[in-house]
Amino acid sequence: MTTTPDSLALVILAAGQGKRMYSDLPKVLHQLADKPLLQHVLETAYQLQPQQLYLVYGHGGTQLKTAFAQAPVTWVEQAQQLGTGHAVAQVLPYLTNQQRLLVLYGDVPLIPAQTLLNLCEKTPPEQVGVLTMTVDNPHGYGRIVRDTSGKVCKIIEEKDADETIKAIREINTGIMLIPINPLRKWLQQLTNHNAQGEYYLTDIIALAVQEAVGITTHAPAHEYDVLGVNDRLQLATLERYYQQQQVTQLMQQGLSVRDPARLDIRGQVNIGRDVCVDINVIFEGTVKLGNRVKIGAHCVLKDVDIADDVEIRSHCVLESCAIGAGSLIGPFARLRPETVLAEQVHIGNFVEVKKTTVGTGSKINHLSYIGDSEIGAQVNIGAGTITCNYDGVNKFKTVIEDNAFIGSDTQLVAPVRVAKGATIGAGSTVVRDTPADKLTLSRAQQVTIEHWQRPIKK
Amino acid sequence: MTTTPDSLALVILAAGQGKRMYSDLPKVLHQLADKPLLQHVLETAYQLQPQQLYLVYGHGGTQLKTAFAQAPVTWVEQAQQLGTGHAVAQVLPYLTNQQRLLVLYGDVPLIPAQTLLNLCEKTPPEQVGVLTMTVDNPHGYGRIVRDTSGKVCKIIEEKDADETIKAIREINTGIMLIPINPLRKWLQQLTNHNAQGEYYLTDIIALAVQEAVGITTHAPAHEYDVLGVNDRLQLATLERYYQQQQVTQLMQQGLSVRDPARLDIRGQVNIGRDVCVDINVIFEGTVKLGNRVKIGAHCVLKDVDIADDVEIRSHCVLESCAIGAGSLIGPFARLRPETVLAEQVHIGNFVEVKKTTVGTGSKINHLSYIGDSEIGAQVNIGAGTITCNYDGVNKFKTVIEDNAFIGSDTQLVAPVRVAKGATIGAGSTVVRDTPADKLTLSRAQQVTIEHWQRPIKK
Amino acid sequence: MTTTPDSLALVILAAGQGKRMYSDLPKVLHQLADKPLLQHVLETAYQLQPQQLYLVYGHGGTQLKTAFAQAPVTWVEQAQQLGTGHAVAQVLPYLTNQQRLLVLYGDVPLIPAQTLLNLCEKTPPEQVGVLTMTVDNPHGYGRIVRDTSGKVCKIIEEKDADETIKAIREINTGIMLIPINPLRKWLQQLTNHNAQGEYYLTDIIALAVQEAVGITTHAPAHEYDVLGVNDRLQLATLERYYQQQQVTQLMQQGLSVRDPARLDIRGQVNIGRDVCVDINVIFEGTVKLGNRVKIGAHCVLKDVDIADDVEIRSHCVLESCAIGAGSLIGPFARLRPETVLAEQVHIGNFVEVKKTTVGTGSKINHLSYIGDSEIGAQVNIGAGTITCNYDGVNKFKTVIEDNAFIGSDTQLVAPVRVAKGATIGAGSTVVRDTPADKLTLSRAQQVTIEHWQRPIKK
Repeated sequence: MTTTPDSLALVILAAGQGKRMYSDLPKVLHQLADKPLLQHVLETAYQLQPQQLYLVYGHGGTQLKTAFAQAPVTWVEQAQQLGTGHAVAQVLPYLTNQQRLLVLYGDVPLIPAQTLLNLCEKTPPEQVGVLTMTVDNPHGYGRIVRDTSGKVCKIIEEKDADETIKAIREINTGIMLIPINPLRKWLQQLTNHNAQGEYYLTDIIALAVQEAVGITTHAPAHEYDVLGVNDRLQLATLERYYQQQQVTQLMQQGLSVRDPARLDIRGQVNIGRDVCVDINVIFEGTVKLGNRVKIGAHCVLKDVDIADDVEIRSHCVLESCAIGAGSLIGPFARLRPETVLAEQVHIGNFVEVKKTTVGTGSKINHLSYIGDSEIGAQVNIGAGTITCNYDGVNKFKTVIEDNAFIGSDTQLVAPVRVAKGATIGAGSTVVRDTPADKLTLSRAQQVTIEHWQRPIKK
Repeated sequence: MTTTPDSLALVILAAGQGKRMYSDLPKVLHQLADKPLLQHVLETAYQLQPQQLYLVYGHGGTQLKTAFAQAPVTWVEQAQQLGTGHAVAQVLPYLTNQQRLLVLYGDVPLIPAQTLLNLCEKTPPEQVGVLTMTVDNPHGYGRIVRDTSGKVCKIIEEKDADETIKAIREINTGIMLIPINPLRKWLQQLTNHNAQGEYYLTDIIALAVQEAVGITTHAPAHEYDVLGVNDRLQLATLERYYQQQQVTQLMQQGLSVRDPARLDIRGQVNIGRDVCVDINVIFEGTVKLGNRVKIGAHCVLKDVDIADDVEIRSHCVLESCAIGAGSLIGPFARLRPETVLAEQVHIGNFVEVKKTTVGTGSKINHLSYIGDSEIGAQVNIGAGTITCNYDGVNKFKTVIEDNAFIGSDTQLVAPVRVAKGATIGAGSTVVRDTPADKLTLSRAQQVTIEHWQRPIKK
Repeated sequence: MTTTPDSLALVILAAGQGKRMYSDLPKVLHQLADKPLLQHVLETAYQLQPQQLYLVYGHGGTQLKTAFAQAPVTWVEQAQQLGTGHAVAQVLPYLTNQQRLLVLYGDVPLIPAQTLLNLCEKTPPEQVGVLTMTVDNPHGYGRIVRDTSGKVCKIIEEKDADETIKAIREINTGIMLIPINPLRKWLQQLTNHNAQGEYYLTDIIALAVQEAVGITTHAPAHEYDVLGVNDRLQLATLERYYQQQQVTQLMQQGLSVRDPARLDIRGQVNIGRDVCVDINVIFEGTVKLGNRVKIGAHCVLKDVDIADDVEIRSHCVLESCAIGAGSLIGPFARLRPETVLAEQVHIGNFVEVKKTTVGTGSKINHLSYIGDSEIGAQVNIGAGTITCNYDGVNKFKTVIEDNAFIGSDTQLVAPVRVAKGATIGAGSTVVRDTPADKLTLSRAQQVTIEHWQRPIKK
């Protein structure tokens, strides 16, 4: 990446409400891939390493400040939303004349840092740089008006454009790089004599041209790079574009994906060699997948660390857990936070595991709830086993030592310990620790009732 | 919407078999978004409020009459399918000369009422109105032949067209508005001297032109609006188009959708503010989602009423139930009909609830089957709890009063009542009512067998 | 299909490593629709019934020979990968001069047999046949250079092309049909004086032209027919194209598919009439679906045989099982191998069945694990029933005869037999055979503890 230019100040305009979102959230807090739009822009801004970073806020300021309490930005209020020129004017007092100001938007989340660096590099210090783009359908955008020599003369907003102007297909993305010194004067000269009654930042272009200040334009690589979010359709469009980018990147690293359009990545995914992901999988948070890991269809994985040669079968929901090499999980398994599985562990269908460590080679294959437990190695837990870890107010721990065999439909009333090699008979309620290597059970005698008659239809 | 024209009669042609469907159902009974094709057309027809509404049927008449027994239409049989002209001729006896006849098709399901109203409004009473469209690939359609002045002269079917005609890209959608008086004569003049040996309704255009009756044409907004269903591919194409329309409409109202291409709406969905729907969700029947409701991935919801701030996690199947505010459901939960949850209820994984009311703040978090029950408030139902509601012939009710605690793996043999504040020990079989505030259990003693040996491999 | 030409030898070049796959597998072992790329090519090759079939291998030869140990091919090693010309040279010793050699590629999986037969038929015996195609973006491909009369003069690889050549949009697919006799000489004349330092097979075109040997070209129907797999993106692209083809074919046979883009077919599917498949279903292996079968959303079916009028509800995972007519399965059911259900069987939510036969009309509706069992007809198995089929080392069988009623939460400790019409009380642990028509249970007495106090928060 190109190095950061000197003397760069950066402002992110994030004061808008986003009426067309029909939401109680300010627009820039809406999420794309599980991160607020503004977070995407901030992360790009950090990459540029500006001297200062200003955040102009307005609508939903309290929500914004709560959400980004830790962000290394200077908060600048725009109490009334009187246009982009007015918004930028709010940060002027903070700036020195030697700086250049790069203007970004909190609702344009996918602008690549490299595109901005290129704009900075290409624009001579005394000129104004504008990110512009030629599109098939310019409707709604400000148009770039050029003179016969091809020099930019001004920008005219859609609402103020006549038919000739509307026919222009080069549009203003809104992203600009402006030297501070003349900017002070230009902002004072702005008027709101236009269709929206606002102070447009774009009008400084005409003022710059009047003063023979050059205008440098630069184009982004893709239309989506500069697409703003004004409604839920645009948000969804960018979500899909972002997903496509993420998936493509992983495939280029060697991930096999059955259907790239049906994989959602909402965080960071780190892959080994020869990992295969089936359809409709969702990755959230930080996901680490070792070599030869297979993820079945319809799985949701959040913050998981999966070692080599693990197979996650279809319909699993895993969160905040670690899975050792060679393990086999699912289908229909749910691993909840603080589950740590050693190697070669089997977790089968309709099994929930929570806050539990499971030793090497142990199996919990059917219809069980195992919570707050330590399970040793080579343990077999029968179908329908339940750890009774909660007495209504407190939670207690179950310990099952190596090589134990828990019969089906056992209830382990915690706190309780099943010692090494112990066997528990099917259907037992285990209320006390059980000794090693012996059979423990609780079982009523099997009896048959003579002369009993089946119920009849009432 | 424009008001309905006077003197409008409407006929829907629905006599075809649909050979290319390879089906035992008549074509118009095939479903799009869980409704028969014909139902879509009928609902559009009702919006037009015609003086009369005729349904011309033929193949599968009995099935059709059963499926639409309640529809306010006049059934007119076309015993032999001799072409569209012949079909329309069957309704002539019912019509008066002052009327105009609008011809629709039972296998063209997505024609918008507004397009039809526009056609009616635009067409002078004495003229013939035709819905035509210019398409990129006119193959298979009748072509609109115009004279040098641009006036329509005739319509030529694909099978009867030469190369010059085939090059015409303006096609006949088949939807026409015709004054009854001349129509009587024109239908008598039709011949079946053509490639298919049928009486084409389209041939009346040439007859009208001969009599200097004007032809008014009007175009639909989208190609899919007039697309007919002749095979399963076209049915699927229209299904996806319809889904896209439904989803777009909800997004414009403020619904957040992770992937618009992966949401299926087969009924009516009513949304509050800031509702989010993850991938691969299906809505069926009437679905009401309150403010800030979140629906996780891979869920199927049918006829549900979900209050504010409810989170439905992934992999849930809900049908005919109501869920109170602030409740948390799933993942892997199944709520069956007549389930009514109060506020702040938790239903967890591998839990089935049926015909049951659950009070405020109660929890059924793991691997349970609760049916035919009344659960009070603040009840905790342990993992593996089962209501034994069925004795093989009759079903009985289980009542669990407020603040009860049901230990894990309890069987409640209905009819039975667990009184307020009662606690049931883990693994109990509850066969009689249990007193309030006390511990009730059924439990065999835990014993350990000395000198027991594990089975050995046979 | 056209008949196979005489004297055809066929070679599949499969020596490449596939660096851009970033994989430990040789490229041609990567799977498309659950079959290695090479398997697709081999199956096409078999359809052509060549006199001999050669497989040129190099990278990963051991893996290849293991995977295709049974394939009726002659294995020919290309120890060093010195180009396609060098690869073909390896098989020359096996060929006779009367033959023609058709050159296919192990990483071009979807070439249709018919396209190859057409190439063979169209190419006179003494000429060279080349499959070429005109594409929008020829980047990366060898270009077909023609003289002013339209005759092919030579093929120039991308890396050796100047701008004029690069502008040519007709490209070489690599697939050629070559008479053996002149091929021997041409291969000797090849040089590696080019950008990649390889012996290109394509250079024989220029040599043929020098000798006035005619070049016949033929075009495939679709670009994907000749697309090679060099990275995971291309693999995914072909996977989706293949899926689209498979789904379209089934729809043309009368299958209703809710979303053709969300059905995956990785094997052979055989359908009856009026079968409906909802979204996100995966078919693997051999799947047979009877008339009027409905498959719900999010199901995975592998090697299943489903009779008429069966409904599989959403979220089911079925493998190697047979389901009788009129049965109702799911949602959330898992049928494992060797499950055979008779007619009218109901398997409900969170139920796992394995290696079990179930008789007509029997029901296992909730939260059960039934393995290694024979279930008779009209049996009702209550919620939470578990067959304890495994003692830690051996597996045993459970038999439940006709008309038995198994109360909820029963454990059946195998080997055990429940006789005809027997009833088992809820919560029983059945350790011995139970008599017919009687009630058998094992149950501790229900007791209430006076003066008991609930736990308090610690």
